[in-house]
Amino acid sequence: MEREALDPFSSLLDGFETRTAAHAQQTGPYADGAAFVRGEFVPAAEASVPLFDLGFLRSDLTYDVPAVWNGRFFRLDDHLARLERSCAKLRITPPMSTPRIRETLIELVRLTQLRDAYVDVIVTRGATPRGQRDVRLATPAIYAFVVPYIWILPLTVHEVGGSAIVTREVRRTPPGAMDPTIKNLQWGDLNRGFFEAFDRGANLPLLPDGDGNITEGCYNIFTVHDHVLRTPGRGVLEGVTRLTAKQIARSEGWEVRTEDVRVSSLYDADEIFLSSTAGGIMPITTLDDQPVGGGQVGPVTRRIWERYWALHADPDLSFAVDYA
Amino acid sequence: MEREALDPFSSLLDGFETRTAAHAQQTGPYADGAAFVRGEFVPAAEASVPLFDLGFLRSDLTYDVPAVWNGRFFRLDDHLARLERSCAKLRITPPMSTPRIRETLIELVRLTQLRDAYVDVIVTRGATPRGQRDVRLATPAIYAFVVPYIWILPLTVHEVGGSAIVTREVRRTPPGAMDPTIKNLQWGDLNRGFFEAFDRGANLPLLPDGDGNITEGCYNIFTVHDHVLRTPGRGVLEGVTRLTAKQIARSEGWEVRTEDVRVSSLYDADEIFLSSTAGGIMPITTLDDQPVGGGQVGPVTRRIWERYWALHADPDLSFAVDYA
Repeated sequence: MEREALDPFSSLLDGFETRTAAHAQQTGPYADGAAFVRGEFVPAAEASVPLFDLGFLRSDLTYDVPAVWNGRFFRLDDHLARLERSCAKLRITPPMSTPRIRETLIELVRLTQLRDAYVDVIVTRGATPRGQRDVRLATPAIYAFVVPYIWILPLTVHEVGGSAIVTREVRRTPPGAMDPTIKNLQWGDLNRGFFEAFDRGANLPLLPDGDGNITEGCYNIFTVHDHVLRTPGRGVLEGVTRLTAKQIARSEGWEVRTEDVRVSSLYDADEIFLSSTAGGIMPITTLDDQPVGGGQVGPVTRRIWERYWALHADPDLSFAVDYA
Repeated sequence: MEREALDPFSSLLDGFETRTAAHAQQTGPYADGAAFVRGEFVPAAEASVPLFDLGFLRSDLTYDVPAVWNGRFFRLDDHLARLERSCAKLRITPPMSTPRIRETLIELVRLTQLRDAYVDVIVTRGATPRGQRDVRLATPAIYAFVVPYIWILPLTVHEVGGSAIVTREVRRTPPGAMDPTIKNLQWGDLNRGFFEAFDRGANLPLLPDGDGNITEGCYNIFTVHDHVLRTPGRGVLEGVTRLTAKQIARSEGWEVRTEDVRVSSLYDADEIFLSSTAGGIMPITTLDDQPVGGGQVGPVTRRIWERYWALHADPDLSFAVDYA
């Protein structure tokens, strides 16, 4: 029975490895990645950002990360809609329309010929005129790049599940300081979390909010108790993969609650999984060095994992990139 | 008497304007600013940062800002010592030794020939090898630039004082999320504060910590009550200009307390001033649209302001740049 349950995993891994091996035969300047900077397409390794862009000098930016899987963009328009909302919250007017951003991302994927790709689009405040400090005078800028698909948790670990910690030395930046629904690159807290995880021999950090609730890492968090799924409702990114996971769970007839999730509830969960476009549904089977539930990937996580990847071929949620 | 009190102000302004006018005659590629990127000196306008540097992609960096005034570097070694401490806290090994960073900054100033300069040095986590996500594998990088001196509050406003608000819609990121003694460019909260200040018709935001204490803006905050100075002891940058202001105040025989400063105490202060290398001692005479104390720059602030600028010629704290 375990062997049968592994089939979707083996199938996904085999397909990914086959496509990756095929891509490794690609040559040309964009094979390792392509970027769009200053209005031009360039090989990723040559891409740079002006030093005086406030995206660098103040991390005054937002970004989004759609992905391409098996030659198809998944939920691209959901990512672009969130990017629009993030820009509006920051009072940044993107220098390109959403349809043009969309075309640019597709063109970047085409240039790389990558069938499985991490796609990153960043809109910054841009630079102010020399000698001016008022950010309202800045001219927004856009940067984008496409590189091979990135796994926050290596795919080979998904079968047995990853290890996480609840950080003791760092909490997530509260929404009153930085609104986490604006996808941002102010990763000081997340970076501290990763170092703490490494120091404690684990893969991934889960950050509390300082008030007894869990928030997120660079991924959303789900707990499962008796087929009831919970994910934090506040102080976190409104993840596109989180949305997909919720939709799958509800279609399975499972209850999903988006609400405060107490840190303590992680320790009596049947299952825990994380969600992110960079890695999909990530089972967590070890928390603070102790097994989660039975210590194996549970049936709810497994089912969502399988359906999540299957949905990547669904024409309602994805479309084929024209690589010609 | 008011006229006499203005003399140091007029003198400072005249000197600055004279030197600025003289510099405007400079031509050549570095006259507007110089930068050090990828190990090379380049005109500021041409400087860029590799797109994949985690300093951009995660704001994983620290920086420091010494300044040059009237041809002399002020407290440069204090800034460089703080930069070293910040790097150690982030577990970033700078790619250059502190003496070499020091030489590089001096050379940048020489290239520009600027007599009054804003000097910015940034050490980033750098980039990881392609396809790797573990930040421990990154190779740190350093960037630096020198541009004309920047005034957070225009110098012409110092005579009458600036206007500030206590932000109602944003609080400072707490130390448990991001340690503010690591000088960082995660300005999401500060940017929100500036927008709120602009919306409310003021110059500068003062951010509370969410627990009833005031913290900082992109400057430290001082209150004065009956010749007792208070500045927040927690949740703020350990400012070099703050240190200078404290030293001046103590040498005047005034008590200085570095402790929690209640937000409410701002509203019955005799005087409020801010401190930053980018602008020095900045009197605040209007808070939330109401006058601070008598609504004019008070005697304590005025004395510290005068002595602060006079110290820039003190050989114990400054040294002349060799412009030849």
